[in-house]
Amino acid sequence: MAIGFQFILTLFSLFSVPSLTFAFAPILPRFPSSAVSAELKQRSHSSQNGLYRTKFFTQILDHFNFNPQSNHTFQQRYLINDTFWGGAKNNAPIFVYTGNEGNIEWFTQNTGFMFENAPSFQALLVFIEHRFYGKSIPFGGNKTVAYANTSTLGYLSSTQALADYAALIIDLKKNLSATDSPVVVFGGSYGGMLAAWFRMKYPHVAIGALASSAPILHFMGMVSPDIFISIITQDFRSESENCYKVIKGSWDLIDDTANKPGGMELLRKTFRICKSDDFGPDSLEGWLRAAWIYTAMTDYPTPSNFLNPLPAYPVKKMCEAIDSSVTGNNRLAKLYAAANVYYNYTGKATCFDLDDNSDPHDLGGWQWQLQTEKSSC
Amino acid sequence: MAIGFQFILTLFSLFSVPSLTFAFAPILPRFPSSAVSAELKQRSHSSQNGLYRTKFFTQILDHFNFNPQSNHTFQQRYLINDTFWGGAKNNAPIFVYTGNEGNIEWFTQNTGFMFENAPSFQALLVFIEHRFYGKSIPFGGNKTVAYANTSTLGYLSSTQALADYAALIIDLKKNLSATDSPVVVFGGSYGGMLAAWFRMKYPHVAIGALASSAPILHFMGMVSPDIFISIITQDFRSESENCYKVIKGSWDLIDDTANKPGGMELLRKTFRICKSDDFGPDSLEGWLRAAWIYTAMTDYPTPSNFLNPLPAYPVKKMCEAIDSSVTGNNRLAKLYAAANVYYNYTGKATCFDLDDNSDPHDLGGWQWQLQTEKSSC
Repeated sequence: MAIGFQFILTLFSLFSVPSLTFAFAPILPRFPSSAVSAELKQRSHSSQNGLYRTKFFTQILDHFNFNPQSNHTFQQRYLINDTFWGGAKNNAPIFVYTGNEGNIEWFTQNTGFMFENAPSFQALLVFIEHRFYGKSIPFGGNKTVAYANTSTLGYLSSTQALADYAALIIDLKKNLSATDSPVVVFGGSYGGMLAAWFRMKYPHVAIGALASSAPILHFMGMVSPDIFISIITQDFRSESENCYKVIKGSWDLIDDTANKPGGMELLRKTFRICKSDDFGPDSLEGWLRAAWIYTAMTDYPTPSNFLNPLPAYPVKKMCEAIDSSVTGNNRLAKLYAAANVYYNYTGKATCFDLDDNSDPHDLGGWQWQLQTEKSSC
Repeated sequence: MAIGFQFILTLFSLFSVPSLTFAFAPILPRFPSSAVSAELKQRSHSSQNGLYRTKFFTQILDHFNFNPQSNHTFQQRYLINDTFWGGAKNNAPIFVYTGNEGNIEWFTQNTGFMFENAPSFQALLVFIEHRFYGKSIPFGGNKTVAYANTSTLGYLSSTQALADYAALIIDLKKNLSATDSPVVVFGGSYGGMLAAWFRMKYPHVAIGALASSAPILHFMGMVSPDIFISIITQDFRSESENCYKVIKGSWDLIDDTANKPGGMELLRKTFRICKSDDFGPDSLEGWLRAAWIYTAMTDYPTPSNFLNPLPAYPVKKMCEAIDSSVTGNNRLAKLYAAANVYYNYTGKATCFDLDDNSDPHDLGGWQWQLQTEKSSC
């Protein structure tokens, strides 16, 4: 099976960067720690008092084989909220979020849809963390061990994750004496693919699935490999032809500038790159690319804070910055202004650290999944 | 997941034999080599000239993990008959038998239903052998290695088998340029469970399933553990109350007889047990039990030869032998006459070998599946 962020791999051909290896590595971990806004942090804090309770389920390591290691177990985290639940006796429904590639608290805090709909359905809310992410680490909860080699990391797969969800849901319903409560699964992006697949693979466990932004047909040979980047490109081009042209021309512009005497210093100053960085045109281009992609991926019609704090319609805002007459013909200044929409909407940053490899949402396993999940059985 | 022959385990409680371990072991391999009748052997022989062609598919060992061993491959056997096929251009259908716990040729030769229906549907016929059975042995095709320990035998599971079928069917359709040909899966007993599960788990691969004698609800906690033996008992009791009573009383009768002076010799003579056997009341009771069970399992309305050559309505024939006035009040003689229906319908046997552990249909892996396939996710 393949996944949402796989698109990022396909994208570099269009943005004409030669080294996939380089370009891929720095982008994924760039989700900044500021992604959880003050508002959400407060919500998370209040959650200790009611938004959700944290629980753990003893999960089996391998649902499909009977090797000596198959029956090993690990602690799988899930979050639960029964504030709105109509209860087992009323067969009130259970809404389950099928967690994707990160800390489940992060997804929970960004899935207001379920909280908003729970009252009218009197639904129990359950958010299950994906194996190998967040606190749901096999092999004793030790991430170093779990990620050490393919003998351990090999158990990170979408099919195992789906079986995890089935086992947890079946057990939870039994414990709640709620075996007759219907289950509907929810998810976004890869989590949405999991929700859709779950409904298909475990029709006896879930009566429905809501899959948001779930590219379940985005597999090799099923769609053009350019489709992801074409849509990103179209997002910007639909705002203005000039915006599209400036971004498209930026890669050559940066390379040309870097090759001129004093060019690197000009770039560093223009983009306010922190002095300590091992800075080059490739890292700058990767940094800008991430801004365009992640902003297009979170181009919501309201202010939001999933990856970074953003205004409503942030792609529009970026193109307005590029098209603005304030920067005249200075294309580098235009690009910097647009990048600021993504990296510095709060206006607090004084310089930008291109070497920031922090991974606040525990997305580290994603690169493994990107490489391994290829077929669509 | 659990399986057809699991019933055999549950049965011994009703037939009140104390040792499951003993009773279980000798029954399964008793399928006699005479099970393939002359007629079927002829059919098999003619099959070399058209009933089916034998092919092999390079199958992946583990569809669900990405451990170092997961990508190992093995040769999976399948049989194919395109005599009746309307062809890829007509999107003519493909009928697939989802092989169960034995040599696929055996099941193919006993699934006339598919051959009979192929012409009117212009269907391609494909019979896929289950991993770890027949010639479809992982780990280099070496059964000794594959069955050596749980590190290798652990890959024998119904979920892996289903994924095998999906991979093979998808690849075969691609190779035949028949991706639009609808697939319907067929199976009986455990093979029927696999067919039903396949339709549920791979709805994009099969548009329908015909599951014959497939006890997909026969799992711990879902039905009474006595249900299998209750049905067997009812099969005999519905023929005659006396038949039921004679069989029910036979276990005490055999034990009592064995404990009398000369009793063992009487039993050996009455049941024509070959002299060389390590013969005791337990082995005799196991031998009789197998006759009642397997005859009830193959109580077809026509003469047949799936396990042993049998007349039409063989349970009725057994009860007629028990109720017959020819044997008067000699209950041991009545039991022998009934057992003869299963073990000696051709009338060629001169004595019976209770130690025959031959396994002509390669059913050896079944005991492993019986022990491991427990949950129904």
